[in-house]
Amino acid sequence: MTDTMPWREVQRTTVFEKFGRAVDQVHFEMPDGSKEEFYLKRERPAGAVLALTPDRHVIVARQYRPGPDRVLHELPGGFIDPGEQAAAAIARELLEETGYQGTILEVGSYWLDAYSTARRTAFLATDCVRVAEPQPERTEHIDVVTIPLAEFRDRLLRQGAMTDTAAAYLALDHLRLL
Amino acid sequence: MTDTMPWREVQRTTVFEKFGRAVDQVHFEMPDGSKEEFYLKRERPAGAVLALTPDRHVIVARQYRPGPDRVLHELPGGFIDPGEQAAAAIARELLEETGYQGTILEVGSYWLDAYSTARRTAFLATDCVRVAEPQPERTEHIDVVTIPLAEFRDRLLRQGAMTDTAAAYLALDHLRLL
Repeated sequence: MTDTMPWREVQRTTVFEKFGRAVDQVHFEMPDGSKEEFYLKRERPAGAVLALTPDRHVIVARQYRPGPDRVLHELPGGFIDPGEQAAAAIARELLEETGYQGTILEVGSYWLDAYSTARRTAFLATDCVRVAEPQPERTEHIDVVTIPLAEFRDRLLRQGAMTDTAAAYLALDHLRLL
Repeated sequence: MTDTMPWREVQRTTVFEKFGRAVDQVHFEMPDGSKEEFYLKRERPAGAVLALTPDRHVIVARQYRPGPDRVLHELPGGFIDPGEQAAAAIARELLEETGYQGTILEVGSYWLDAYSTARRTAFLATDCVRVAEPQPERTEHIDVVTIPLAEFRDRLLRQGAMTDTAAAYLALDHLRLL
């Protein structure tokens, strides 16, 4: 079906770029030959981890999120640096943000947005124990809390109170705990 | 805990704005008194619907997505206009994109990104029947397909091949079909 051919990119101009995020103005030729202008976000890959203690509490990084403009219970995670293995990046983020360490397993991935290059990877971490003080980055202000898994699922995930809903679901689905 | 106080916004300047999407440069005062600069995406609310036929096939809008730069099996949906009821908006998008109509139920919502205002709402549509030809917008080139629910879950959702993973999971969770 011609409807689902990839569009042909004709021209691209970067109109904004800062801190690893860019917006490009892109002119495409559509499947029917018409020309259209789009603004696409060029963003880095990132990951998030559902990290469980041995007694199945979820390790949550409670923090203010400026986009939603509210304090949220977030999964630990962050951007994956170029050339860095995703699992190693997430293990590093978990340790830095929360002081916990555990067995990391990749459980899935997803696209974030039809107009963004952003790819997200979901991880599960099991048997997590606290091995250090958190070492947050300069702009990170995190309150580390642990929440029983059922409460996390029912009061946070199902109530829409997170930015990594897909990652949490992929991890819980992997565990068949939904 | 002072760590989880909202940050105080000191100054905001729009650096990009087009087609309903904006990027603002925002200076914040952090909980420890330091000043930091962030670039936040100001984006509109949107929704997506897991739409099922009476025999439990998922109605999918297969289309090229320029952000991921590939053809994906997508849930029908779109941006919610100011003042428009979300369920009505999604019913409209479902009808326009696929020609199907059904019983719409809101099943959850989620934040998309820590640095975006974007709020997404997930819907379930049941007993969907085709009542019209699709009426796609000028830039929409959609191949409407129906996929058995188990295949949708196993080959698309769990394999990371979508942009509305969270919405699909919220709908399947509501149905207890995970």
